[in-house]
Amino acid sequence: MTDAFIAVDWGTTNRRAYRIEGGIVAASERGGPGAAATPAEAYPAEVAGLRDRLGDLPMLLGGMVGSTIGWRSVAYASAPAGLGDLVAAVEWIDDRTGIVPGVSIVQGMQGDVMRGEELQILGAVAAGMVPGDALVCQPGTHCKWATVAAGRIASFTTAMTGELFGLLRTHSVLKGQLMGDVTPGDAFVEGVREGAKRDLAASLFGVRAASVLGLRDNADVPSYASGLLIGADVAARIEAGMTVYLLADANLGALYAAAISTLGGQSVAIDSEAAFLAGVTHLWELAR
Amino acid sequence: MTDAFIAVDWGTTNRRAYRIEGGIVAASERGGPGAAATPAEAYPAEVAGLRDRLGDLPMLLGGMVGSTIGWRSVAYASAPAGLGDLVAAVEWIDDRTGIVPGVSIVQGMQGDVMRGEELQILGAVAAGMVPGDALVCQPGTHCKWATVAAGRIASFTTAMTGELFGLLRTHSVLKGQLMGDVTPGDAFVEGVREGAKRDLAASLFGVRAASVLGLRDNADVPSYASGLLIGADVAARIEAGMTVYLLADANLGALYAAAISTLGGQSVAIDSEAAFLAGVTHLWELAR
Repeated sequence: MTDAFIAVDWGTTNRRAYRIEGGIVAASERGGPGAAATPAEAYPAEVAGLRDRLGDLPMLLGGMVGSTIGWRSVAYASAPAGLGDLVAAVEWIDDRTGIVPGVSIVQGMQGDVMRGEELQILGAVAAGMVPGDALVCQPGTHCKWATVAAGRIASFTTAMTGELFGLLRTHSVLKGQLMGDVTPGDAFVEGVREGAKRDLAASLFGVRAASVLGLRDNADVPSYASGLLIGADVAARIEAGMTVYLLADANLGALYAAAISTLGGQSVAIDSEAAFLAGVTHLWELAR
Repeated sequence: MTDAFIAVDWGTTNRRAYRIEGGIVAASERGGPGAAATPAEAYPAEVAGLRDRLGDLPMLLGGMVGSTIGWRSVAYASAPAGLGDLVAAVEWIDDRTGIVPGVSIVQGMQGDVMRGEELQILGAVAAGMVPGDALVCQPGTHCKWATVAAGRIASFTTAMTGELFGLLRTHSVLKGQLMGDVTPGDAFVEGVREGAKRDLAASLFGVRAASVLGLRDNADVPSYASGLLIGADVAARIEAGMTVYLLADANLGALYAAAISTLGGQSVAIDSEAAFLAGVTHLWELAR
């Protein structure tokens, strides 16, 4: 099949690879080292291994593989960016091995960057899962919020919401209290409402004070604190009545959906793997 | 002198002790273990040592010495609280050794606590350094903001601004960028203005993105990031035209003063050691 190719979603800690034939996943593998665990000189052998297992085919790679911690630092496409802008900026290692660029935005001294999320966002749009004008959210360590306009990524904001929760859970004065399960129940919703005050440093100390004063059940603290952080993130991004397209795993997706609903919005869950596959396949159609 | 006594400001990591005679510091010592480094059973010997060096006198102790990590957990006085409320709640270890209570506030499921700051705040008011109706700020790991009304602590909020900066500097994706000096110059002011958007998780990722995109001089990053955190803290607490009485060391005081000024307020620097001494001396007058 002349249209067969290999697509690799190569993030900081995870890698997924797919052989795609006629727009359909014919084979795939999960695992293998993330970009953070792969020295630049190790990529040719890794890529050869993928071709041994998935087929001797052209390959498109997206994600942190194109960053300073990856194979080669690939210049960002500037927002607004659609699939056509991405394909023009693919960095070809050789005539059949291309790295997809990330997207950057600069406004004065402020800027933002993404690598990997752009294929999900634009794939979801290309596949009709997300309208051409939409607000898309990709929760995670660094949560991306992208405004899609006329089918392109018009602007976006990254919030280090997940990283802050990890720092607080591991190293802060709250560390003993945040290790339990986080669920989108009443304590989480209470946290979202407090977080919507957007006074994070004070609301977080309030978690400590409530513990000292015995005001909250210990079992509720992780969910409340997560609600604070996610609530502050969502409150900075949406107004009542807005729809957010969520590209997330089930757990984080449920938390963000609850926060969005609490703050008067609505959310639509989108399968992020399907979105990536649609994005990379459309890019391949444009590239070949 | 019958009015002589020893005052101890015993915090988590620092201890200062003073022999006060006729309202004047006649002798003092700095150093000795903080509460975090003093097991409960070690306090009698520590206190005996202080009396050996400073005089065999009655003693009032304030700060974390009265917490669960200190000598004995002393119940908080509830806000609104003035010196008269504190003196009524002093916990006497024996008839001449008293621990000053902290202050707590509870509103529904939200609450806050202070231990040690109350003596500075109420001392500054008693000494006329701060008016009877005022907004007082004590920057630090956990920054206290107290509203004083009719000479009492009416309400207060703690923001873990300093702790967040420490976490980011030591453990986050920004850790390589935040180790330099923080000064209240242009980069700090720029950070304050960004922080005033009260979108901390996003503004902090912006520090990372600006670095990736080469938008900001590396030397400016610590000041900019500090400005973000302090700006978010100040913006949540003041409106233009307000006066803030700052009980702070010179470095943090200069940063908070710059942030307050940037956001349209004005600040008055108060000597926090003098405020503590005034507070504990007035308390002693009421107690004996």
